[in-house]
Amino acid sequence: MTIRVMHVGLGPIGVGVLRQVMARPGFEIAAAVDIDPDKVGLDVGEILGLEAKTGIAVQGDLEAALASHDTDVVALCTGSTLPGIKSQLESILGAGLPIVSTTEELSFPQFSNETLTAEIDQMAREAGVAVVGTGVNPGFAMDTLPIVLSAACERVDSITVDRIQDASVRRLPFQKKIGAGLEPDDFRQKADRLEIRHVGLAESIAMIAAAFGWKLDQITDVIEPKIADEPVASNFISVEKGQVAGLIQDGVGFRDGEPIIQLHMEAYLGAPESYDAVRIEGSPAMYSKIEGGIPGDITTASVTVNTLPRALAAPPGLQTMRDLPIPSWWSGS
Amino acid sequence: MTIRVMHVGLGPIGVGVLRQVMARPGFEIAAAVDIDPDKVGLDVGEILGLEAKTGIAVQGDLEAALASHDTDVVALCTGSTLPGIKSQLESILGAGLPIVSTTEELSFPQFSNETLTAEIDQMAREAGVAVVGTGVNPGFAMDTLPIVLSAACERVDSITVDRIQDASVRRLPFQKKIGAGLEPDDFRQKADRLEIRHVGLAESIAMIAAAFGWKLDQITDVIEPKIADEPVASNFISVEKGQVAGLIQDGVGFRDGEPIIQLHMEAYLGAPESYDAVRIEGSPAMYSKIEGGIPGDITTASVTVNTLPRALAAPPGLQTMRDLPIPSWWSGS
Repeated sequence: MTIRVMHVGLGPIGVGVLRQVMARPGFEIAAAVDIDPDKVGLDVGEILGLEAKTGIAVQGDLEAALASHDTDVVALCTGSTLPGIKSQLESILGAGLPIVSTTEELSFPQFSNETLTAEIDQMAREAGVAVVGTGVNPGFAMDTLPIVLSAACERVDSITVDRIQDASVRRLPFQKKIGAGLEPDDFRQKADRLEIRHVGLAESIAMIAAAFGWKLDQITDVIEPKIADEPVASNFISVEKGQVAGLIQDGVGFRDGEPIIQLHMEAYLGAPESYDAVRIEGSPAMYSKIEGGIPGDITTASVTVNTLPRALAAPPGLQTMRDLPIPSWWSGS
Repeated sequence: MTIRVMHVGLGPIGVGVLRQVMARPGFEIAAAVDIDPDKVGLDVGEILGLEAKTGIAVQGDLEAALASHDTDVVALCTGSTLPGIKSQLESILGAGLPIVSTTEELSFPQFSNETLTAEIDQMAREAGVAVVGTGVNPGFAMDTLPIVLSAACERVDSITVDRIQDASVRRLPFQKKIGAGLEPDDFRQKADRLEIRHVGLAESIAMIAAAFGWKLDQITDVIEPKIADEPVASNFISVEKGQVAGLIQDGVGFRDGEPIIQLHMEAYLGAPESYDAVRIEGSPAMYSKIEGGIPGDITTASVTVNTLPRALAAPPGLQTMRDLPIPSWWSGS
């Protein structure tokens, strides 16, 4: 079986997904779509920086692409918010195709918009296909993985997930996204305008709470700059002492006023150790740590590509990583 | 919602499941069955060592229990092998009840017996309910968890799982099961007679291979004694230097002659550090470690109880942990 994938959205994440589908057995590029006029008409090989052409040109019109291609599933990597992708979901579901999307808010859309969640679910059921939002975070590191670890417990009192990343090894857009090199005031203004933020902590918290059957009274999501206490540099950006090296973001789910789900992210240039850790207080207490951490760029694409077979096999409707069979790498055979 | 559970089999594992169902919100004991004449007629409270009685007496006859109780799901904890539980499966499925079982061979029955696997699947489909084999190992630590971790990878070359347990903190039957206190010759004879062994490594290997789409040419499962190089003791057993402190067991899955799935267990008195670790060679490489390890006794029961709601919601037929939605602790509300 080869799964034929239409790629919609060719930003850094979409290109990462495209690269894996191109390279991995069991998957094949059916079509690629992006609205950027600089990309339309380019061969997919050029988009990937390959020497060889693939014969598949980037199309600018989603409707036209949907009308003319032999596709099993769409990888949708265009935006972070539900309202931003609504019309794309309508078009793709209208063509009867299942969707795996890296749209952060789609990972657990019940959190941000119950009305739109119900609409998407209804559209997907009518189309007879599944829609899933996923990625490494949200979608894996701070929700699926801690939920799975909890299965060994007879009692969970609270759960804490730490995701610490040395951003100096990441791509430039990521380093900019976390505010590296800014003055602290600039950082705070950009954070207030939502230009600097990781989207998804609240969705992950809501997914964990739903899995556990916990009713939360509040979810908070707070961003602070990590100020460099000495100069630090990446290949792209130099940060002076007192400038911003990156971000610290804390999502907290409260029940009866107590913080019982705490998701803590640090992503900054010069973080001494990258790791992902889950701590469960309960019976038994558990502490799980991934040394070196789950790198962000490859794994957002991995989790997305690994979810394509799951979406094809899933019952119609809106699905989340909590609803699907356990995720897995797949060799293509 | 309260899930009413009939407990069949009240050995150490079955009693662990009973204890959690008794204590945890969302679950309720519907009935308890065991063939041991010393247990039949006892109140479940006495079985659990509680002061208070529950009003539920242990029954000796499974058919009679099935005929007269208001049950949602059966927790079956009677044996390790498929042939050993076949008639019980027939009776329970004949009564139309879903089953979660700690029978190790049922965790991935395709490995040991394809004919019986097909029969069980057919019986479950006809009954309109699901049958699932699970527990902490097999069922979680060395299959579900490594499979889930692989979802972050674009490529897996090989996977190694280490489960190291200091057995001195475990119950006496477990210490005996791993051969603690034996002379090395006695250990080898008992291992040859299959009286000392952990059942399930091959099932876990087969489940991982199925998830990855790997065709294996061989699965090996080798048990060796861990010889004490100095005296060591638990609360129950004293081991002299040169005697057996416990077991070392290695399951290996080979593809094209290469060992690509390696499950390594050590369980012995005096192991300096208990831990569970998963190492994936591939892209990205990953190393995940649970410090202190996943304790065996509580968590076999936890995984089993946490799977009860999944079995109730699953489609009819034989299911494995690979087929079900991600496992999770559940608070009962």
